[in-house]
Amino acid sequence: MSKIKIASLQTMVYADKQKNLDKVAAIMEANKDNGIDLFTLPETFNCPYKPANFPVYAEKEGGQTYEYCSNLAKKYGVYLSAGSIPELDDEGHVYNTAYVFDRDGNQIGKHRKVHLFDIDVKGGQRFFESETLTPGFNIDTFDTEFCKMGVSVCFDFRFPETGRLMALEGAKVLLVPAAFNMTTGPAHWEILFRCRAMENQVFAVGTAPARDLSFSYHSWGHTMVVNPWGTIINELDEKEGILITEIDLTEVDKYRGEIPMMNNRRKDVYTLAKLKK
Amino acid sequence: MSKIKIASLQTMVYADKQKNLDKVAAIMEANKDNGIDLFTLPETFNCPYKPANFPVYAEKEGGQTYEYCSNLAKKYGVYLSAGSIPELDDEGHVYNTAYVFDRDGNQIGKHRKVHLFDIDVKGGQRFFESETLTPGFNIDTFDTEFCKMGVSVCFDFRFPETGRLMALEGAKVLLVPAAFNMTTGPAHWEILFRCRAMENQVFAVGTAPARDLSFSYHSWGHTMVVNPWGTIINELDEKEGILITEIDLTEVDKYRGEIPMMNNRRKDVYTLAKLKK
Repeated sequence: MSKIKIASLQTMVYADKQKNLDKVAAIMEANKDNGIDLFTLPETFNCPYKPANFPVYAEKEGGQTYEYCSNLAKKYGVYLSAGSIPELDDEGHVYNTAYVFDRDGNQIGKHRKVHLFDIDVKGGQRFFESETLTPGFNIDTFDTEFCKMGVSVCFDFRFPETGRLMALEGAKVLLVPAAFNMTTGPAHWEILFRCRAMENQVFAVGTAPARDLSFSYHSWGHTMVVNPWGTIINELDEKEGILITEIDLTEVDKYRGEIPMMNNRRKDVYTLAKLKK
Repeated sequence: MSKIKIASLQTMVYADKQKNLDKVAAIMEANKDNGIDLFTLPETFNCPYKPANFPVYAEKEGGQTYEYCSNLAKKYGVYLSAGSIPELDDEGHVYNTAYVFDRDGNQIGKHRKVHLFDIDVKGGQRFFESETLTPGFNIDTFDTEFCKMGVSVCFDFRFPETGRLMALEGAKVLLVPAAFNMTTGPAHWEILFRCRAMENQVFAVGTAPARDLSFSYHSWGHTMVVNPWGTIINELDEKEGILITEIDLTEVDKYRGEIPMMNNRRKDVYTLAKLKK
């Protein structure tokens, strides 16, 4: 099975948490006969993206949103990269956490955002995740029936170590729930996804919320799928939408054969590795 | 001194080695009153870019091209990133080597290309540097009166480890003599330079040969300077030309203050380091 049909949901994020979940359910229901293998959701798809909101919307693992998503994956027999949600741990820390469920609704992937997004651009965006969030401590990949995949959250992907380490673990598809804004989006969204896919010779899937001008944080949108050559093969604009893309994993080996970048890393000149906790 | 005036020479590369040197000398003479601090030259600027040519044009360190460039730097009192040239060592190995000279003509930087360019794109470019070249064994930075800088050669720059390691050593300007082609140029040149500059929050200067359709290897050209925000601030097309750009190093700290990416690397989650020879 080299082909994967991916549906990326660029949803509007409402203050009503349940409304966000029901929206995802409705879209999955409407697409149940479309042969979708993997649904992907945006960063904090159940919580308007704002530091003060994260503790309010946070749930323990296995909570309302988690359970709902697990059930959806099982009901429709699909993989579900459930964007990210604010996660509350037993000590009261809140994380920006991406969960992935398999066709049986089992959790197969989990990533707590490790690089928190703090930005203060003069005349542009000001935003500090670190005001309410705790950073995670791992670079995460997981297995599927198709291939190994990696999942990271938004700002994580700016750090070349993140994508590289996932690719070195064998991930051929990098899933990135993200929410760039009107400052960083036009400047960096496209070059980042294209370069990460190209340099690691993998597919990159960025899933963003739709833009809501009535809310404080204006998402750039532009949910996007990039192939291992660094070419955008499918993309939305800023409005609500569903991006359905069939990718072919044989392209990974094709491009790695043409320009042997992954094999030609100089492991005798430098080392890049994860540290044990 | 936060401002550096850089002149990047996108020259045609002729089969006559001395003609290439004289061309550089003539351009430097013509610009001697323009306040240029740093001249940059393209990859193998003294040798048409072809594996079979490299052993033929190769010189020992201190040879004809080296001496000529050292003298030019001293004569005009400028820094000179002398592109790259085929270098012959005492054991008969040939390297694709970038030298950098200071205002007194002293060699202050040297980088032997560590990632050799082997490519075999179906219906596109086929080219194997490894047929005649030996790879180097270091990621290289050097000090100037302005700041630390890094120098790597073309294909090296595709590997995120290269730019990252130079930036971690303190380089604020990355010099890259390069020669992308008509397959890789339109696909990757711009996103690569923009992403490397953005992710490391440094200036990136790519200097390429002009396109010569009468020669076997068609250079993409597009000599380019990118700022630490990932914005192209100056660029040529494919024709011969001189790109004069004044950069302001205070932008490095400005952008690093706005989005603290270099400080927010998770040194407790992963490690990237050079290995000792």
